[in-house]
Amino acid sequence: MKKIKRVLISVYDKSYLSHLVSTFKKYEVEIISTGGTKKAIENLGANVTSVESITKYPSILGGRVKTLHPNIFGGILNRADIQSDQKDMDQFNIHTIDMVIVDLYPFQEAVEQNADNSEIIEKIDIGGVSLIRAAAKNYKDILIVPSTEHFDLANNLMISNHCCTNIKQRLSFAQKAFNVTSNYEYNIATYFDSTNKENPKTPNTFKQNILSSKKLRYGENPHQDGVYYGKLNELFDQLNGKELSYNNLLDIDAAVNLIEEFEEPSFGILKHNNACGFASNKNLEDAWDQALAGDPISAFGGVLITNNNIDLKIASKINTLFFEVLIAKDFSNEALDLLKSKKSRIILKKKNANLGEMSFRTVLNGVLLQTKDLITDGHDLKLMSNLDVNTNQMSDLIFASKICKHTKSNTIVLAKNKQLLASGCGQTSRVDALRQAIIKAKHFGFSLENAVMASDAFFPFPDCVEIAEKEGIRAVIQPGGSKNDQLSIDYCNANNMAMIFTGTRHFKH
Amino acid sequence: MKKIKRVLISVYDKSYLSHLVSTFKKYEVEIISTGGTKKAIENLGANVTSVESITKYPSILGGRVKTLHPNIFGGILNRADIQSDQKDMDQFNIHTIDMVIVDLYPFQEAVEQNADNSEIIEKIDIGGVSLIRAAAKNYKDILIVPSTEHFDLANNLMISNHCCTNIKQRLSFAQKAFNVTSNYEYNIATYFDSTNKENPKTPNTFKQNILSSKKLRYGENPHQDGVYYGKLNELFDQLNGKELSYNNLLDIDAAVNLIEEFEEPSFGILKHNNACGFASNKNLEDAWDQALAGDPISAFGGVLITNNNIDLKIASKINTLFFEVLIAKDFSNEALDLLKSKKSRIILKKKNANLGEMSFRTVLNGVLLQTKDLITDGHDLKLMSNLDVNTNQMSDLIFASKICKHTKSNTIVLAKNKQLLASGCGQTSRVDALRQAIIKAKHFGFSLENAVMASDAFFPFPDCVEIAEKEGIRAVIQPGGSKNDQLSIDYCNANNMAMIFTGTRHFKH
Repeated sequence: MKKIKRVLISVYDKSYLSHLVSTFKKYEVEIISTGGTKKAIENLGANVTSVESITKYPSILGGRVKTLHPNIFGGILNRADIQSDQKDMDQFNIHTIDMVIVDLYPFQEAVEQNADNSEIIEKIDIGGVSLIRAAAKNYKDILIVPSTEHFDLANNLMISNHCCTNIKQRLSFAQKAFNVTSNYEYNIATYFDSTNKENPKTPNTFKQNILSSKKLRYGENPHQDGVYYGKLNELFDQLNGKELSYNNLLDIDAAVNLIEEFEEPSFGILKHNNACGFASNKNLEDAWDQALAGDPISAFGGVLITNNNIDLKIASKINTLFFEVLIAKDFSNEALDLLKSKKSRIILKKKNANLGEMSFRTVLNGVLLQTKDLITDGHDLKLMSNLDVNTNQMSDLIFASKICKHTKSNTIVLAKNKQLLASGCGQTSRVDALRQAIIKAKHFGFSLENAVMASDAFFPFPDCVEIAEKEGIRAVIQPGGSKNDQLSIDYCNANNMAMIFTGTRHFKH
Repeated sequence: MKKIKRVLISVYDKSYLSHLVSTFKKYEVEIISTGGTKKAIENLGANVTSVESITKYPSILGGRVKTLHPNIFGGILNRADIQSDQKDMDQFNIHTIDMVIVDLYPFQEAVEQNADNSEIIEKIDIGGVSLIRAAAKNYKDILIVPSTEHFDLANNLMISNHCCTNIKQRLSFAQKAFNVTSNYEYNIATYFDSTNKENPKTPNTFKQNILSSKKLRYGENPHQDGVYYGKLNELFDQLNGKELSYNNLLDIDAAVNLIEEFEEPSFGILKHNNACGFASNKNLEDAWDQALAGDPISAFGGVLITNNNIDLKIASKINTLFFEVLIAKDFSNEALDLLKSKKSRIILKKKNANLGEMSFRTVLNGVLLQTKDLITDGHDLKLMSNLDVNTNQMSDLIFASKICKHTKSNTIVLAKNKQLLASGCGQTSRVDALRQAIIKAKHFGFSLENAVMASDAFFPFPDCVEIAEKEGIRAVIQPGGSKNDQLSIDYCNANNMAMIFTGTRHFKH
């Protein structure tokens, strides 16, 4: 255990000092400080040795250079067990500092408040970071307290150990210290990157530093540990239910991205990240009925989402289903009261928040990063067949193509009157996806006569349009781009079918 | 444009100084330095002003404190356009420094060389980081060159502009500088985190900093930008073919994780991250034939993987298939010559490399992180039915369960004699997954008589065992854990079927 005799304090935020200062007074620890921190400590009734009296140098450049002096850094960086260090200390009359308390200039706050560049730059702390790093490097001899966040922890340690610390405690604070400087430097680098307009969206370095975290009960499976980094409360108000799980979050991500494609009142039901039911209808109640009819079996335990408000009438219908999550724009009080009758149901009120333009995931021994797929189908559509589509078919084709984009590949989506009849999803072959969709649609009693078909990628062969045509499907939408495109188009022309190209592939894995 | 009159140089690696020093000599720039750097520059024939002559203070504590002095940091941090700063400069006789060149102590190299703790700690650069940060903060007046990596760029700039720089150039170097310190601090924080044995696998902060990057032609789709961060050459030697794409990497990740479950000679064929063919057989040629037979349609354009060596005989068979990627332990020269006949085919020789224990991905406005699913089925299996399984069935059940683990959920896998007959994958309902697997298996001519069934999660109802039994399936493996488990077990007992519980769910999305 080492006794703390001298502490250097240099903090931006002075409002949390009183407990520590009381403790130092009680244990007769000499306090060294400068400028505003010195004044604040003196106002708390403690004596302070000025940094200037140690350095024999005033604070210069409007406070930009205060502590950067050998008499201070020697006091921090000298090693108690190195004889030559201690000889230097004697020769230059430098006194050891046993503890350093710092609170850095609030750089990130200035960035978030959109302060102007010169103000942000002025908030780059030079002296404070140097003090933290020097003290943390010398943790064998020094205790570093790197931010106000750690003041209570440090004060409790001081009190319970009578201002003594052991190496394990000092190492633990050094670890916190380098996490503080690492995060601080990450924020500065990210700010400088953002000011460089020539920066590509896919930079050469993959940098991340997210401080908000929420431990999850477990990961994708109970034997895996899971955690979410980010601020979910900026996206949702959770109005009811148990804690969100890893798999809930995956489903909610898929649901939110899907629903954002649609402006008309719409309802979606998702399982394992894919829509098993979806419908758009100017009457939201009808949209719910149609979404549920798409696959009432899969809907069991699903994630439900709408871009509209839930009133009591719709809530009464939803209430009869066992579901995990319900996401809506808002809820009437009566609707909410009813839906809350089951305590574990997760009910989320969605806010408008930016989900960002980039996605990334671990793959092999690294990370794959990409710009998100942000193209919504419906523009620059090209009629490829002799037969044109009617207005109803066109809106169904766009509807189906939007669902395709958010369904795992390979996928085929069958739809009619803005109702998802069935999809084949996550398939290793496109024909399998279509066959699966047909079987599912028929299983739940739908006729495919005059339905439309959407594909997330081109048809390498005309087999899909052949199979679709035999089921009564008359209009097809797909990206196009196969060297065999013409075979599918020819088949459409010979069989009274219409085909539209979007020009945009939507693989999603 | 600002002319550089005085440069401070403090570098760990002295071997790249000669060009810069020549340039400074040519343009009569005053060089300030100390210690080893000073000697190295003098050896290059240039005059050097010592830091000590400016600070009137020697280097102390074995070099731990050299440049940390107001006469140096005042020279770096003073603002040319602030009158009071310049008054301080005059009063304290401090001279402006126009350029700072630093190369930090190689902290990360010491970590990677497994140096002992005290050696690693000594490699935490205090003075160098302070110099970089101070100069970068004051980029309006100063040019900062933060590592040897940037020496050539800086020297070219000096030569082409006669040792003058503009603000845009200085800002660009400041951006590099904070990326250097950010990465440096990340490495230190990560090291300190790693020394804390109490650290959870899911820490409170999500920190990443990967410097190796490889731009991809595009992302998941052609309209998306993509990049891979990591060192693929530590995993594979690419022996042939075009550049790996985003979707190749996703498939290869799935393939590598799947094949690592199997010790017997095995072959897998993957499409859209799922196995469409897989077989284990002591004869690798038979394993290939059986894997391909699983779904010869999906295999078109697939990713092929084996845990064994490819000889000419197998290569001749594989050569008839159109595929994207082939991964093997090794290749005979003849086999490789034949396979290389198509230039775009990607051929990878897999090395033994660690893929890490954690996975993460962007979800909503943040990141989901989890420990990987590292439990391999085959241990602690529990017989739940009255009927036991025979040895063949048991090895088929374990085989099928391993494939389940690496197939997207919901999934049902049907197998016989260590051959994948078919899987239903990525489904919104478990019954759909089973139905799909049955249809696919029959479509490719397999009898399900005495096949086994594996499920990645429990059966909420007995419907799956009922359907399976009608197809001749006599043994089932699943995690168990439903409140309705007994219904499925009862059905097995009443119908001469065996059921094994693994106790481990394997959702994968």
